[in-house]
Amino acid sequence: MDHTYKLLEVAGSSPDGIEQAIENAIQRVGKTMHALRWFEVIEIRGELDEHKVKHWQVHLKVGITLDEPNKG
Amino acid sequence: MDHTYKLLEVAGSSPDGIEQAIENAIQRVGKTMHALRWFEVIEIRGELDEHKVKHWQVHLKVGITLDEPNKG
Amino acid sequence: MDHTYKLLEVAGSSPDGIEQAIENAIQRVGKTMHALRWFEVIEIRGELDEHKVKHWQVHLKVGITLDEPNKG
Amino acid sequence: MDHTYKLLEVAGSSPDGIEQAIENAIQRVGKTMHALRWFEVIEIRGELDEHKVKHWQVHLKVGITLDEPNKG
Amino acid sequence: MDHTYKLLEVAGSSPDGIEQAIENAIQRVGKTMHALRWFEVIEIRGELDEHKVKHWQVHLKVGITLDEPNKG
Amino acid sequence: MDHTYKLLEVAGSSPDGIEQAIENAIQRVGKTMHALRWFEVIEIRGELDEHKVKHWQVHLKVGITLDEPNKG
Amino acid sequence: MDHTYKLLEVAGSSPDGIEQAIENAIQRVGKTMHALRWFEVIEIRGELDEHKVKHWQVHLKVGITLDEPNKG
Amino acid sequence: MDHTYKLLEVAGSSPDGIEQAIENAIQRVGKTMHALRWFEVIEIRGELDEHKVKHWQVHLKVGITLDEPNKG
Amino acid sequence: MDHTYKLLEVAGSSPDGIEQAIENAIQRVGKTMHALRWFEVIEIRGELDEHKVKHWQVHLKVGITLDEPNKG
Amino acid sequence: MDHTYKLLEVAGSSPDGIEQAIENAIQRVGKTMHALRWFEVIEIRGELDEHKVKHWQVHLKVGITLDEPNKG
Amino acid sequence: MDHTYKLLEVAGSSPDGIEQAIENAIQRVGKTMHALRWFEVIEIRGELDEHKVKHWQVHLKVGITLDEPNKG
Amino acid sequence: MDHTYKLLEVAGSSPDGIEQAIENAIQRVGKTMHALRWFEVIEIRGELDEHKVKHWQVHLKVGITLDEPNKG
Repeated sequence: MDHTYKLLEVAGSSPDGIEQAIENAIQRVGKTMHALRWFEVIEIRGELDEHKVKHWQVHLKVGITLDEPNKG
Repeated sequence: MDHTYKLLEVAGSSPDGIEQAIENAIQRVGKTMHALRWFEVIEIRGELDEHKVKHWQVHLKVGITLDEPNKG
Repeated sequence: MDHTYKLLEVAGSSPDGIEQAIENAIQRVGKTMHALRWFEVIEIRGELDEHKVKHWQVHLKVGITLDEPNKG
Repeated sequence: MDHTYKLLEVAGSSPDGIEQAIENAIQRVGKTMHALRWFEVIEIRGELDEHKVKHWQVHLKVGITLDEPNKG
Repeated sequence: MDHTYKLLEVAGSSPDGIEQAIENAIQRVGKTMHALRWFEVIEIRGELDEHKVKHWQVHLKVGITLDEPNKG
Repeated sequence: MDHTYKLLEVAGSSPDGIEQAIENAIQRVGKTMHALRWFEVIEIRGELDEHKVKHWQVHLKVGITLDEPNKG
Repeated sequence: MDHTYKLLEVAGSSPDGIEQAIENAIQRVGKTMHALRWFEVIEIRGELDEHKVKHWQVHLKVGITLDEPNKG
Repeated sequence: MDHTYKLLEVAGSSPDGIEQAIENAIQRVGKTMHALRWFEVIEIRGELDEHKVKHWQVHLKVGITLDEPNKG
Repeated sequence: MDHTYKLLEVAGSSPDGIEQAIENAIQRVGKTMHALRWFEVIEIRGELDEHKVKHWQVHLKVGITLDEPNKG
Repeated sequence: MDHTYKLLEVAGSSPDGIEQAIENAIQRVGKTMHALRWFEVIEIRGELDEHKVKHWQVHLKVGITLDEPNKG
Repeated sequence: MDHTYKLLEVAGSSPDGIEQAIENAIQRVGKTMHALRWFEVIEIRGELDEHKVKHWQVHLKVGITLDEPNKG
Repeated sequence: MDHTYKLLEVAGSSPDGIEQAIENAIQRVGKTMHALRWFEVIEIRGELDEHKVKHWQVHLKVGITLDEPNKG
């Protein structure tokens, strides 16, 4: 069977690092959508405060299986 | 608190110029979604007619706060 | 009248070739959305098995007219 | 019927702004070619003088219908 | 002898697929220019109608030998 | 004589549009540096508020003549 | 277990079309390496002769599982 | 009020990982400049020694508020 | 003496994070090649399972000194 | 007065090096067009023979002033 | 010890060729800064006059060690 | 007959200039591989010492004919 995926672009953040910003974005998307399959990092940024990174920010594309509409 | 944003790609148009094409796209997206925070221009194009620009067309990504699902 | 379009990024696949992977993605998107206007190819990939292409995979952006919310 | 377009890269300028630099380029190309259909912005630059923008310069690609040679 | 080539950017289209859109563009360019040597694909797009691809559109650069002006 | 230029990357903003955000950035750089020659736009962004553009933000590179150190 | 893949860049060709140029490259790589898993298209080009495509040429990266050295 | 930012490109390094290389670069820049606001990652590299990463190296752009010159 | 380096593109993975995926790729390459000098990150991706990152995947180029063939 | 420039993409070659390949392309274009103002290098390539560079090949864009059509 | 580098973007020029334009830019930067470590070419351009290259222009990034502020 | 080429990425260096760094890389690759056909420049860099270029470094892709395995 041939799958179709939707690629959703999101930006997540965390005070704890790059991986945690990604995990936070994935978990937030997972609250309203299921069947998340993969992600690709688009951009890594951050907000600074007093010469420290206050928030790590990561833009990513998340690949999500499009269910059959009569099943989804 | 760590925010997550969705980046929606849209293309707006206007006969009046680049800024108005962007404003039109933002206003149209704002009719069905709230919490629009920022935009980034991806591409500027236009349709020509009789050697004049008939429609300015701008592709942009709009950053939208993802509300908590039980609040949104 | 000035139109606004949404650009949806999807990835379609097919064992039969690049054009069919694109057609499959378009048909799947068309099951839940109408007013699909154009597409742009982002990436062509594929899965291999026994030194043959098992699935052609094409990432594309699909341009979709955003209907007026009170009409859509 | 299937159309073929030529994409001509040009750079226009104006002291009055980005849109006018584009319109100037389109009008100049229109003096020797007809059937100009669309444009895409490639680069926005400018010349400075006394801390002001003296000339806005825009590089664009212009899409032009290639007429049938026995008709053009 | 050292050759110089001109790279002409064109966009061809076809209802039949990507290869045919390229062949159509090459044949149309060949009606007014000779000595076409190679092409490079820049972009693959298409127009949609009723959830099917109505026209495949391919932007390409065509490399053309510049003849000596007193011979061309 | 051979010139050397420094390319300074800056981001300017304005509530009034893209050209004004660029002019503001140029004028601010001109307060502490002289001999600004040209600019190139890197990115156009903006902040949104109530579905309108509150601040247009433009990233640009400014080309500045490096004076001879014993003269500057 | 964590896999490591090697990405080999190759260019294949065929008189018959884009898919066949890719299949030819994959089959040729498969003669000396095993465990080919996926490919990504980098560039599509071609050689022209008498205003027709004589050879379709596709540059691709092929992802190959690196076997454990004591097993490979 | 409209702000102008300077984007400074720096490369930081650390034996401890990507985040620490970024924090080191930010802290070093903060020794001679104040009002650091955000950063964007441009490139992640590293030096290897005996098949281990000896130094993680990250190129970043740091956004710095340009103070009013009579206040800075 | 002038060195020549080979740049090998590999993709490593790890359930533990981005740095560990890079270290795993480097160690695997080091099993069959020596004189690894540096790496550059090309792409960061990952596989998702139950809304968590199951495998972090990093594509990198590894710079390897080409020994003199009569010494290597 | 506002100028408009045409950007012509050409590829020149020479057995003698990169600069000479560029000069050859410029001189060939100058045989049929005047008012050549600047060039930008797009790509540097070459043909190899017996482990030596036989032809240096440089793709460049040449900026050419478009004369007023009633004067040109 | 972990080093931090500043990347300064400059454009140098020379009537004599690409390498000399780069050397000129490096020497000019070296008049006011020390500890220049490496460069990367960003763009190669040139000004034309009478169908010859009058000035070769090269944009480069120069990597400069940031000294400790109490030592610099 | 349809050829397949391998694209090998290498970085060569020379104290004498860009062309010589490329020739050095080609000659080094030619010591262990035959049938080198073309190259493409990916990046031009250099190491600095006392405000002069000590080593020119060029990253290139080299296109190499893949021989039939029973003949190679």
